[in-house]
Amino acid sequence: MECVPNFSEGRDKGIIEKIAAAFRHRDGVKLLDCSSDADHHRSVITVAGEPGALKEAVVEAMGTAVALIDLTQHRGQHPRMGAVDVVPFVPISNVTMEEAISLSKEVAAAAAARYALPVYLYERSATAPHRENLSTVRRGGFEALSAKMTLPDWIPDYGPSRPHPTAGAAAVGARPPLVAYNVNLATDNLQIAIAISRRVRHLNGGLRYCKAMGVALRERGITQVSMNLTDCSQTALYRAHELVRIEAQRYGVAIAGAEVIGLLPLETLVETAAYYLGLENFSVSRVLEARLAE
Amino acid sequence: MECVPNFSEGRDKGIIEKIAAAFRHRDGVKLLDCSSDADHHRSVITVAGEPGALKEAVVEAMGTAVALIDLTQHRGQHPRMGAVDVVPFVPISNVTMEEAISLSKEVAAAAAARYALPVYLYERSATAPHRENLSTVRRGGFEALSAKMTLPDWIPDYGPSRPHPTAGAAAVGARPPLVAYNVNLATDNLQIAIAISRRVRHLNGGLRYCKAMGVALRERGITQVSMNLTDCSQTALYRAHELVRIEAQRYGVAIAGAEVIGLLPLETLVETAAYYLGLENFSVSRVLEARLAE
Repeated sequence: MECVPNFSEGRDKGIIEKIAAAFRHRDGVKLLDCSSDADHHRSVITVAGEPGALKEAVVEAMGTAVALIDLTQHRGQHPRMGAVDVVPFVPISNVTMEEAISLSKEVAAAAAARYALPVYLYERSATAPHRENLSTVRRGGFEALSAKMTLPDWIPDYGPSRPHPTAGAAAVGARPPLVAYNVNLATDNLQIAIAISRRVRHLNGGLRYCKAMGVALRERGITQVSMNLTDCSQTALYRAHELVRIEAQRYGVAIAGAEVIGLLPLETLVETAAYYLGLENFSVSRVLEARLAE
Repeated sequence: MECVPNFSEGRDKGIIEKIAAAFRHRDGVKLLDCSSDADHHRSVITVAGEPGALKEAVVEAMGTAVALIDLTQHRGQHPRMGAVDVVPFVPISNVTMEEAISLSKEVAAAAAARYALPVYLYERSATAPHRENLSTVRRGGFEALSAKMTLPDWIPDYGPSRPHPTAGAAAVGARPPLVAYNVNLATDNLQIAIAISRRVRHLNGGLRYCKAMGVALRERGITQVSMNLTDCSQTALYRAHELVRIEAQRYGVAIAGAEVIGLLPLETLVETAAYYLGLENFSVSRVLEARLAE
């Protein structure tokens, strides 16, 4: 089982390390990656492990984040409603979606009880259709939580019906694998990044499995189209990349790099190289390390 | 240990399967890939295994090829001097080059004795500097072997000093990993493929770790720049690919696909995707399956 919790702290390395410590030196849990971004003010941790050990580690990390992150002081460009903003469980290596859903509910219940934290179940774990989409659950962010929780549609699945004073609320659920992919634009004009994001994303007529938003990378003086590719087997990463490129061309803006947040599935890497090189008859089974590992 | 024997048969699937059978259902040996090409009239088998088991399997496959392939009837575009043309051993997964050299000599001695086959040691196993380069060893091909073997410089390392009547001679040795990579050109003009090959290869002023030749793919009515990239960590695959593209542009010729013969190392795949997408801070350690396998 994989878990990719997102925490609303991307600047203070001390805090990030204290949260990540829950996943270190623990039997049955492997810390695979920790990506932090100061502009997003967010860290994304990727871990894999046995369900039981993973549950304990994730609940512990959530507690650390609830204790150390104060959302009343938090100003970042990424939408967020909580110190532990979202905790997705992803079934990998022969784990089923049902097991991921079940684990997400155990973690949600434990964290809510232990930290007096309101928790919404989302995606495949959602208890109602209007709670499936994370952006709907999170709409309004931390600042709108108090009012939102008084609405019958938005009573949390676990925990109190009022936000944690400093940690807000968390979304916990199970979902298929997702690739978080950002394309940097050689312009400091945020309006261009926002306009391109709207054209490539599903919400406004773009690619079906693509969510996107424009972000300013202030220190570097550039902007970014920040995407979530929710099904790379249908909406290829290279296609999203090239679509950003052709939209950027309208503005005379070049692509200035790109980044994967967290880890990239080998299948996506193979498809990307096969597209750009025009490889015939190429697949994961032609990668030396993949064959040796069989 | 990896072994990538090349056999001079790319058309008769029955013969290819009989040769490959030596690597199937054998403890300690894993058949990873078998790539055949009718225009090259050649098959490349990729296997990995424990040195002892691998030795037995390779010697057996060499015997099958010696018995079934008749070089006097062989017309293909790839240079060749034997039914078993070349047998490179490649150290992988903690095997040393010295172990690969030692195994190559054992295989060469056994095959020479068992099949009365002259064998040259080449690359890292070569017994003299002028025998290191495979193209020098093979120069003149099967047809020139009788005369070549009378020269003091070209007495075989093992076996008789006259060619096997139907199987010629074999080159056996140890070498670092190599990527066999072909780029197809949307033209049937072989002279263009040859001219481009000369410009990209080391021999004529091109990329240091690139060997190349022009080949006609007669059935498809196109041509090919067929390359061996002998050190992809220095001469990147994408760089060779793009250099073929810019040379082809002089002729108004487009790239019409590409292919990897055998298997591609994950490192090369990562570098390719990172180049085309402009990925920042990306490496093998960001590939999910690679992290899980650690």
